[in-house]
Amino acid sequence: MSTPNPKDDTMSSDTKDLFAGIDIGGTKIYTVITDANGKICGTGRKKTKADKLDFAGVIERTVDCVHDACGNAGIALSDLKAAGVGAPSPILPDGTAVNAPNMGWENVPLVKTLEKALGLPVFAENDCNAGTLGEYYLGGGKGSKSLIGLFMGTGLGGGIIYRGELITGENCMAAEIGHMIVVEGGRRCGCGHFGCLEAYASKTGMGNKFAHEIIFQGRESMLKEKCGKSLSNVRSSILKEAYIKKDEVVVETLNEAAHFLGLGIGNMITLLAPDKVVVGGGVFEALGKELLPLVQKSAKAVTHPPASFKDTKIVLATLGDDAVALGAMVYARECIKKGHK
Amino acid sequence: MSTPNPKDDTMSSDTKDLFAGIDIGGTKIYTVITDANGKICGTGRKKTKADKLDFAGVIERTVDCVHDACGNAGIALSDLKAAGVGAPSPILPDGTAVNAPNMGWENVPLVKTLEKALGLPVFAENDCNAGTLGEYYLGGGKGSKSLIGLFMGTGLGGGIIYRGELITGENCMAAEIGHMIVVEGGRRCGCGHFGCLEAYASKTGMGNKFAHEIIFQGRESMLKEKCGKSLSNVRSSILKEAYIKKDEVVVETLNEAAHFLGLGIGNMITLLAPDKVVVGGGVFEALGKELLPLVQKSAKAVTHPPASFKDTKIVLATLGDDAVALGAMVYARECIKKGHK
Repeated sequence: MSTPNPKDDTMSSDTKDLFAGIDIGGTKIYTVITDANGKICGTGRKKTKADKLDFAGVIERTVDCVHDACGNAGIALSDLKAAGVGAPSPILPDGTAVNAPNMGWENVPLVKTLEKALGLPVFAENDCNAGTLGEYYLGGGKGSKSLIGLFMGTGLGGGIIYRGELITGENCMAAEIGHMIVVEGGRRCGCGHFGCLEAYASKTGMGNKFAHEIIFQGRESMLKEKCGKSLSNVRSSILKEAYIKKDEVVVETLNEAAHFLGLGIGNMITLLAPDKVVVGGGVFEALGKELLPLVQKSAKAVTHPPASFKDTKIVLATLGDDAVALGAMVYARECIKKGHK
Repeated sequence: MSTPNPKDDTMSSDTKDLFAGIDIGGTKIYTVITDANGKICGTGRKKTKADKLDFAGVIERTVDCVHDACGNAGIALSDLKAAGVGAPSPILPDGTAVNAPNMGWENVPLVKTLEKALGLPVFAENDCNAGTLGEYYLGGGKGSKSLIGLFMGTGLGGGIIYRGELITGENCMAAEIGHMIVVEGGRRCGCGHFGCLEAYASKTGMGNKFAHEIIFQGRESMLKEKCGKSLSNVRSSILKEAYIKKDEVVVETLNEAAHFLGLGIGNMITLLAPDKVVVGGGVFEALGKELLPLVQKSAKAVTHPPASFKDTKIVLATLGDDAVALGAMVYARECIKKGHK
């Protein structure tokens, strides 16, 4: 097609500009300091969970974390051009974080408060949107014009980029990919609905199946010994070991997750026809080589028109745990480039 | 939200400019002549089907149709600023119509040929995309920033507009809304897949159910007498009569169609969070009042997060048979405004 690639001018940024990318989550805050091309020159890390911080506490610790990262990079805070933040909440255009259940936030002025505390221009996005931006500019999505990102962890998050722009929706709550219904009346999801993609393709969703098969049905599985009754967030390394050793319950459950992930991806290709889809998150970092072909096969079986499946590449994410922080940094860079502040 | 409405500047167009909007279909060509605000001042209509025209024949007849419409409006062809075309094919940025099975077209230079024949700037889009644009600027979608349009006829077509821009996808084949899978392994669709939305929510899809219930299962229905064995494209007026008279098979089938339409719409709201969805096509022109509440109920039951459903209005299309021609005209106007030719 003749559409210009929205990323073509990336390299025209002044590469001497420095940015902070901050990933604020329920368990930790992680900051990267990078040049304009996303090359990391320093990092910082702080815990949030154990201390049950309120909003002011999280802001304070975030500032500490950025200071640490600057120190690690050998620069001063004032050397930064801007900071980007990824947080587990819908973010309004004015920088308000609407609702982050695992942070205890409701309508908190995230951007304003951080700008005051850091003395820098700050730009925030939802963490899954930021992760997708990171993969788009710097990871598995490089070279694409339009990208869908899916990250399978405790839940199933994602983001949608159409020709360089995030699709955030008119209420900033778009791209709730994990909550597309893939089996009407199917397995119960944490959100209260039945048959959401996340109820099949996430650690929580798979945990429910593990519990059903192993505890209620009494099937044999390595997980019984390795995890006991804590089946709702099994470590990816354990899943990998069990999958490679052909543990029946694990193979069945992960293959089912890959199958439904492919079904959801196929439906999204039918709707949005992106040129790439990236799949990431802990399970795919551990078992991407094994599961990706199943995802591709299942997506191919439903994409319409069938011939158009060849126009979309489904690939693995490559940034791992850096995706959100790097994406937040890229978001700040792009906002500055567009003159948003 | 603070996003500016992409349509706010519509009225700044020179309203003296005149446009042609052309709807090319498998059975007829329909042209409207309008001012820049979409006010129709002349129309033309020509048949295509009976004569089994090749591409050159369709072009010739389209030119005749535009001439007729100009005559009807009391203007000369040279008074037109530009023409827009909606055609049943994906359209590449260079104006090539990729594939229109019911026209017998494959990779035909639609825009170039029409520009030469008409001596005007011509802009073409897929007919369902054009219909959605028509509803967005002039019909049920007025006032929205982002809109999804669905048109239930022989098939189920649609279009997606995000903040003023059509989402055409990287291969120009996006928005195949009728081919999202809503029931994996479900009813066979004309496309060869199983469980597409179109297999439930289109006249063809409902026709298969009518045939199953009435012919194979021997259930009583008004359709037996009214349509005999031609159940695959029952006229909307007959469906309306049967629905109002509580014909069991018809009520069951239409309610099911509305249910799955709502499920598909709910999933699209979860993904794209538009502020409006318009539902049109013959069946909804006839039975919109009865079916729309069922569609809304079913969409509400699955949209995520549940509270966000209130941010999207699901309404009826209002342009009827004019939607594609008016949308094509609007498309031409917007392309001219952006200086595309």
